[in-house]
Amino acid sequence: MTVPAQEEPRVRAYDLVLAEVEQGIATGRLRVGDRLPSERDLAQQLGVSRASVREAVRVLEAMGVVRSSVGHGPDGGTVLTTGSSTALTRLLRLHIGLANFPMPDVIETRVMLERWSCRLAAQFATPAEIDRLRETLAAMERPAISRGEFNDLDTRFHVQIAEAGHNRMVADMTTAIRDAMSWWIRFSFDEVAEWDGLAEELRASHAGVVEAIAARRPLRAADRIEAHIRAAYGALLWTREVG
Amino acid sequence: MTVPAQEEPRVRAYDLVLAEVEQGIATGRLRVGDRLPSERDLAQQLGVSRASVREAVRVLEAMGVVRSSVGHGPDGGTVLTTGSSTALTRLLRLHIGLANFPMPDVIETRVMLERWSCRLAAQFATPAEIDRLRETLAAMERPAISRGEFNDLDTRFHVQIAEAGHNRMVADMTTAIRDAMSWWIRFSFDEVAEWDGLAEELRASHAGVVEAIAARRPLRAADRIEAHIRAAYGALLWTREVG
Repeated sequence: MTVPAQEEPRVRAYDLVLAEVEQGIATGRLRVGDRLPSERDLAQQLGVSRASVREAVRVLEAMGVVRSSVGHGPDGGTVLTTGSSTALTRLLRLHIGLANFPMPDVIETRVMLERWSCRLAAQFATPAEIDRLRETLAAMERPAISRGEFNDLDTRFHVQIAEAGHNRMVADMTTAIRDAMSWWIRFSFDEVAEWDGLAEELRASHAGVVEAIAARRPLRAADRIEAHIRAAYGALLWTREVG
Repeated sequence: MTVPAQEEPRVRAYDLVLAEVEQGIATGRLRVGDRLPSERDLAQQLGVSRASVREAVRVLEAMGVVRSSVGHGPDGGTVLTTGSSTALTRLLRLHIGLANFPMPDVIETRVMLERWSCRLAAQFATPAEIDRLRETLAAMERPAISRGEFNDLDTRFHVQIAEAGHNRMVADMTTAIRDAMSWWIRFSFDEVAEWDGLAEELRASHAGVVEAIAARRPLRAADRIEAHIRAAYGALLWTREVG
């Protein structure tokens, strides 16, 4: 008979610290800009080790909820902050990487998010936001542009559309997914044999989307971004399969 | 002249460990079910302390990427896993709590996600999935049901619709947002003076959504879920403002 592996206890010390902070946030006791008690005070208050407090703070940092800095005085300590987009990007990138989200689901989700953003952008984008989209298009036209630069600008284009939709949560989700896919898309760009042709197609469909947004045509903008996303993934997945 | 607070160095030890695991996942070297090297081996390999490795593992646990268990043999160690929904819920709950996402944006995002799920559910839900939705409706009809039980079933209803849409990423996002709102909705339910009337309205609009899904009418289902979500938040926000 083998001895069964020892079971981990249900509630671990760092979970107590997390729960304390989460409750404070849920009830409105802790707000952005507030400072957490010191590592030593939190450890004493909750009856856990300072190492456990530090583990919990690392988790909160990775979730974009707190920012820590060394030092005393007004700039030191652990402060509640805003940083949802980066944390969401990291989370989605990890789970897309682990294939916890299958690729077809990710593509459909992008279609949903970006159709929504385009419709809102066509209604509410400011002239300055439309100008920024046109600047990104212009930068992607540069003749000597590398595939890496093209990919960075392509990411920026989709993030700018999401931001022009003026919904923080949709924008963060769009940014996170596009960012999470960036490595994969960059890799696929490198595999494409007919790069010039693909780049030209992507530029043309981007321009069509911006035109529809500028013309204040929400449905046309939504249909064009959907066609663009599907065509782009089609071209890249095809490359990956046969390349 | 005051001495400036000491700046935190850019790259911290636990970030090195996170970056190592993230790169392994991004390149496909690490997959679900794989085991990470032991704390001691990782610490040696990356030249960091074991405490730093443990901090990184806590972050990965909180993100739903690894599961740790004490003990040796096949069940011990830190294993790559699937657990995106819980981690996403925690992340969104924290950021909604911190008001990093304004409430109107959260409501619009729910409308977007659930319209999408309803359209897909009306096309692809299996008969068993439609039966489960009807069971949830029936459970919500119980005369002596408490507001807390009602809220739990209400959450289940929205999660079941998302699952019937058969898109993992959209379902996880829907679940995460509904879960993240659960505390707030529960609290608002308690404040409602005309509870019986509100519960009856919610039941009727839920039933209308399920009817449209069962009748395979995607647009009708989407329009009904949107009307339901907007009406529910309208009633609850109005209660919070005047209550």
